[in-house]
Amino acid sequence: MIALTPATPYYAVIFTSLRTDGDHGYSKTATLMEELSKEIDGYLGIESARAEIGITVSYWSSLESIKTWKQQTDHRMAQKKGREQWYSAFKVRICKVERDYEFSI
Amino acid sequence: MIALTPATPYYAVIFTSLRTDGDHGYSKTATLMEELSKEIDGYLGIESARAEIGITVSYWSSLESIKTWKQQTDHRMAQKKGREQWYSAFKVRICKVERDYEFSI
Repeated sequence: MIALTPATPYYAVIFTSLRTDGDHGYSKTATLMEELSKEIDGYLGIESARAEIGITVSYWSSLESIKTWKQQTDHRMAQKKGREQWYSAFKVRICKVERDYEFSI
Repeated sequence: MIALTPATPYYAVIFTSLRTDGDHGYSKTATLMEELSKEIDGYLGIESARAEIGITVSYWSSLESIKTWKQQTDHRMAQKKGREQWYSAFKVRICKVERDYEFSI
């Protein structure tokens, strides 16, 4: 779903990735990481879609909360597996969301 | 593909959407808009994936280039059709990319 984020400014981490073939435990860990990230103070929401490439955008109240999540122990282990097995390439972009607007029926 | 963006800082527009049922000319216009956006001065790249939700992230050198694209005539017509027919909901987030890093095999 579209993340229900608060008034700007807040932060976004855009994670764009290309997967290797096969699951190799990826799906289970991805679900776990999504659950664990929600426990971090400052977590605001997540949006994810995968077609030829995967795009996951997580939203955060501060750069400090992003750093806390990056250094979380289980997440560090997942990052290691990501480089070793799951991804052939990825890019991480840390952004300040300056303005937003929305539409719904 | 993962967009080949320059050194930070640059800008990102995160467009997250929920589609209505049926195509109604959406796919053709989406392809055309992607082509037209590339002609705008300051365009840097685009990444797109759709599963339950669609996420399209376009990258730009400045807020001015984002504004130019938002006001481009064909794009304004597409925005109108988007609200009338193609999307049940969307959110647009304008972001400054402050830091990035990448990995590839």
